[in-house]
Amino acid sequence: MPEFRKDAVVDRWVILASDRAKRPQPNAGKNEPAQTDPCPFCAGNEAMTPPAVLTYRANDPDSNIATWSVRVVPNKYPALVNEGSWTGQSNSIYQTMSGLGAHEVIIEAPEHVVNMGALNEKQVEQILRAYRDRIVELRNDQRWRSILIYKNQGAEAGATLEHIHSQLIALPIVPRTLQEEIDGARNYHDLNKCCVYCTVIHQEVGAQSRMVAESERFIVFCPYASRFPYETWILPKQHATCFEYGSEEDYAGLARSLRETLIRFNRRFKNPPFNYFIHSNPLGEAANAYYHWHMEILPKLSQVAGFEWGSGAYINSVAPEDAARHLREVTL
Amino acid sequence: MPEFRKDAVVDRWVILASDRAKRPQPNAGKNEPAQTDPCPFCAGNEAMTPPAVLTYRANDPDSNIATWSVRVVPNKYPALVNEGSWTGQSNSIYQTMSGLGAHEVIIEAPEHVVNMGALNEKQVEQILRAYRDRIVELRNDQRWRSILIYKNQGAEAGATLEHIHSQLIALPIVPRTLQEEIDGARNYHDLNKCCVYCTVIHQEVGAQSRMVAESERFIVFCPYASRFPYETWILPKQHATCFEYGSEEDYAGLARSLRETLIRFNRRFKNPPFNYFIHSNPLGEAANAYYHWHMEILPKLSQVAGFEWGSGAYINSVAPEDAARHLREVTL
Repeated sequence: MPEFRKDAVVDRWVILASDRAKRPQPNAGKNEPAQTDPCPFCAGNEAMTPPAVLTYRANDPDSNIATWSVRVVPNKYPALVNEGSWTGQSNSIYQTMSGLGAHEVIIEAPEHVVNMGALNEKQVEQILRAYRDRIVELRNDQRWRSILIYKNQGAEAGATLEHIHSQLIALPIVPRTLQEEIDGARNYHDLNKCCVYCTVIHQEVGAQSRMVAESERFIVFCPYASRFPYETWILPKQHATCFEYGSEEDYAGLARSLRETLIRFNRRFKNPPFNYFIHSNPLGEAANAYYHWHMEILPKLSQVAGFEWGSGAYINSVAPEDAARHLREVTL
Repeated sequence: MPEFRKDAVVDRWVILASDRAKRPQPNAGKNEPAQTDPCPFCAGNEAMTPPAVLTYRANDPDSNIATWSVRVVPNKYPALVNEGSWTGQSNSIYQTMSGLGAHEVIIEAPEHVVNMGALNEKQVEQILRAYRDRIVELRNDQRWRSILIYKNQGAEAGATLEHIHSQLIALPIVPRTLQEEIDGARNYHDLNKCCVYCTVIHQEVGAQSRMVAESERFIVFCPYASRFPYETWILPKQHATCFEYGSEEDYAGLARSLRETLIRFNRRFKNPPFNYFIHSNPLGEAANAYYHWHMEILPKLSQVAGFEWGSGAYINSVAPEDAARHLREVTL
């Protein structure tokens, strides 16, 4: 049974999930995800995963490859377990809580695709809708305070299976990184009576130097204080607190911007490993004027090292202005 | 010229150091540090580095390998530059400061050794003394508020040269991770009138389940809320705020504990890549009853992935109790 543990000195939560050590493991020293044959995410092998909680049927009735396009299943090796309520205990100076949460896998294609940039726009849009649908379903459960959607592509980015997928974790807490953004955004709004992310958008569109692309609904840019080379964020241009309350046009627009960004990475770096995640408002809270959902994409082009772990600061050897220019220059 | 940049929303500093992109780079996809031939850190190639700021002469007068045992040089590709004072400016919503700091490399052996665990105890002790001597020298400079000592061994842990070395960065700020520990320790002391780290030591020695080793002066253990598999900390048993005010016996004792721990890792995992760093009190502050210096060693056995970046929390699939037992069981 997994558990949450909190550090005795700092506000740092760890999920101990020993069962995850049983996952398929990449070969030591090899930069490729574990090869499992057959692949549990491929169409035809549905029995290898827990039963789906969401299935999108394939639009093409002539398809002989699969009857589905996107499938969401509970994670077979979950970091958290969806059972009971959240109970804790304090063991002298140490705090522990039961490992309550929901951990799902969004299987993004029925075929054995390993690179999200190879999908077409409609497929990416369906994945984003699956995120939305799962959030909308899970937010009915009062135990969840936040939902994190994230993706690891490539073994160096932490993927253990290469068939493209993303993950969803519903948490009984608001994780630290999200809470810090909310606090920072609230403070900024208190002082300036406007959303800090809207101000960033205004600033970046004006300066242009860190812009990668702009569409009707989204901007894609390398943030001013990028932690990593080629770190890239996607923000909706119109203020919106929650990812899951987008319109149909929003998901279509995000799919276009996301896919285009991944193609830029793939052409510039030959399919680099990457992580992305979506930061959206905690569940059960009303939309507000200060928090602005967004997506952060972190290509894995360098190693996080002792300085970063020891300081919480980052050394980045590629200026975001240079990164943005290189990404803009990619021929699509 | 490097610069500090702060994120617009959260308290996150980034050092932009474009010149570091000129460092020797590991071959893409290869898990080995860059091979530079000849190695700039080997004895005989001293002219390939900037002039030393500290050199320990070799004790053995018959040595025909080298005339030094440890050498400290300014980093040829520094993340920060030791010039001028700390000046900043605010560019609309963005803050930037000049990239002021000292960035040094501690070259840990004259021969081309690539594994710190292969050194003898006396050599490790000399490295720790070199850390101490550099801190004592640099703390005379009023511009520095803290000094971080860290080590990256292995390409996957961020090393760009394989010849064993560690690094020192003197900063005009107290980095976030250290400040959070100090704040947490101060709060605990305010409430409980004792040092939280001393309490942890008492707890761990009593419980034994997470202990790896104990000597006269140090304990080695896997912390209760370990972020990573086999994360291991070394703490002085007697309360001490600053690393650099140790006695001769302290450095000898730490050398023994550190070397032994690295040998445990090497035997259990066949020389895994790792990072370590030393957390010690900020400079220019008096010793106090609440902060307790220590060393954190993070073997690189898993990848940090989207969940960690998106949440600031960690999923660890190896319980520290299991990790500690495995490390205890290693035959030394």
